[in-house]
Amino acid sequence: MSVTIGIVGATGAVGQELIKLLLDRMFPANHIQLFASSRSAGKTISVGQHSWEVVEAVPEAFENIDLAIFSAGGSTSLALAKEAVARNCIVIDNSSAFRMDADVPLVVPEVNPDAVDNHKGIVANPNCSTAVALMGLYPLHKEFGLKRFFASTYQAVSGSGAAAMIELENQVKSWSEKKPLECNVYPHPIAFNLIPHVDTFNENGYTREELKMLNESSKIMNLPNLKASTTCVRVPVFRSHSIAINAEFEKPVDIEVARKSIEAFPGCELVDMPEKNLYPMPLDFSEKEKCGVGRLRKDLALDNGLSFWVVGDQLWKGAALNAIQIFELMQKKGLI
Amino acid sequence: MSVTIGIVGATGAVGQELIKLLLDRMFPANHIQLFASSRSAGKTISVGQHSWEVVEAVPEAFENIDLAIFSAGGSTSLALAKEAVARNCIVIDNSSAFRMDADVPLVVPEVNPDAVDNHKGIVANPNCSTAVALMGLYPLHKEFGLKRFFASTYQAVSGSGAAAMIELENQVKSWSEKKPLECNVYPHPIAFNLIPHVDTFNENGYTREELKMLNESSKIMNLPNLKASTTCVRVPVFRSHSIAINAEFEKPVDIEVARKSIEAFPGCELVDMPEKNLYPMPLDFSEKEKCGVGRLRKDLALDNGLSFWVVGDQLWKGAALNAIQIFELMQKKGLI
Repeated sequence: MSVTIGIVGATGAVGQELIKLLLDRMFPANHIQLFASSRSAGKTISVGQHSWEVVEAVPEAFENIDLAIFSAGGSTSLALAKEAVARNCIVIDNSSAFRMDADVPLVVPEVNPDAVDNHKGIVANPNCSTAVALMGLYPLHKEFGLKRFFASTYQAVSGSGAAAMIELENQVKSWSEKKPLECNVYPHPIAFNLIPHVDTFNENGYTREELKMLNESSKIMNLPNLKASTTCVRVPVFRSHSIAINAEFEKPVDIEVARKSIEAFPGCELVDMPEKNLYPMPLDFSEKEKCGVGRLRKDLALDNGLSFWVVGDQLWKGAALNAIQIFELMQKKGLI
Repeated sequence: MSVTIGIVGATGAVGQELIKLLLDRMFPANHIQLFASSRSAGKTISVGQHSWEVVEAVPEAFENIDLAIFSAGGSTSLALAKEAVARNCIVIDNSSAFRMDADVPLVVPEVNPDAVDNHKGIVANPNCSTAVALMGLYPLHKEFGLKRFFASTYQAVSGSGAAAMIELENQVKSWSEKKPLECNVYPHPIAFNLIPHVDTFNENGYTREELKMLNESSKIMNLPNLKASTTCVRVPVFRSHSIAINAEFEKPVDIEVARKSIEAFPGCELVDMPEKNLYPMPLDFSEKEKCGVGRLRKDLALDNGLSFWVVGDQLWKGAALNAIQIFELMQKKGLI
């Protein structure tokens, strides 16, 4: 049973990781097809020994594709995902276009694998910081029952795509040469700076990124009464998002039980020996499948509360890896 | 009435800012004396057109000093502050040595100016992230009555002194040249990384820096029942600390009233027009006297809650400036 996978947005940062991860998993290169906008169509992309010609993403292009992973932004997904589904192609969508759609399962395989069962052609991949945060929140929720949480993110520039990674690199170079820093992707310099602004602002003063953390966590964990307040901040780190979380639970918390639940959770690595200077850091969790959880402690301002720190590769668990894990889950369930 | 000011730790990052700020305020250069450890004694320090020879900080050196600002770490303060006081020298101490001492006022002039009245020779200057956080917390507290808060810090390397600023610079250079990053000040690379570890770890899993935010805020605002949970993180920014805060109040909050209270507060600048990409950022608040407060919004997870973002120059409001403001306050009150 051979499956052909299409990657839409193949030239982007996530697209590139999707190709690498599929090849790492011994997925046959000749069953991968790369799609992009007309601007990139015709280009050749090479990864390792393999090369592909990029095909323009138009409705007809999905005729012979079994599963397409969309990672080219919301407007591309809105324009093409349903066209792909109409051609019997299953879509795993990395954009925010369908995530809160009641008909579309929003899936983190370690958290809500059975949500894929009722898919109607599209399965949504969560927001990057939400996926990473859940690697800490969900195992603790299973143990103690999550009521609400406060999160502050430290988000890498990879979340804004390949151009943002180049922008940080160029700004650091300009800074070394005492030249002015050029800003194209972000409205302000990101080198040696922080920008408390990820995605666009909503009327209530939160950014859409900040609201995703609440809405998507609530949908994925099936917790309609969950409360959350998040501040999302872009930091001068290339990849891997980090999140400081204060979480309140229904039941009294126990640190040792909390540690064990993190250790036992498949998507997590417990890195929590502060006395030996061991805690998760973005440099250590880049190109890692697992997310790191550490700095676990009883929260001083909540009755049944835990504070902790989660770090995960934004391009992997926050995007490409989770999408591939959804594909693998669907294959295991015989849905593909 | 001429006052002679001694600066202990004159060769450090904060010491240098103390000299610059005093000169900016037209404080006479010949009434400044610089002290440091025996290692630095004899060195000449020049700022602008002025030069001083650094004198070794020994008890007798404080005989003719009216006021000494200590900024050379806790052990120097413990060894010498009381010796200075015994010689009729008032001490403003920037270390954590005496901050929680019941006999020592811990002062942010905009918040608790009258606390200096009962000083017994030593006045403590608060921790840098606490001083910056209070610029947002205190005006809101006056309006709505603070009950508890959650804070995540984004702390610049300047907080670890001049050597840490050089370490970040060197690591960025090594990174550009694809050389390994050398770590001396921090246990891990800070360039393009985050280190969730500021100061040493306490048994309860919090760092001392994280506990200072609660204990010092509680003392300065005279709120013995205040609750707070903080996560302190070092980020690759040269100076200016940033803090994301979720605060809960006694009274219902109103955003416009909150904005006005921030605007009216002397230590604050309201920078809160997200629709125009305006919010406080560390690059904009370095070498600024005021701290920036922005991203003000009703907290989605607290009943009477506000979320906001504060940024302030760690070396200024977080250290040197606040110390000088304490000196000026004491002068105005006729205490010097």
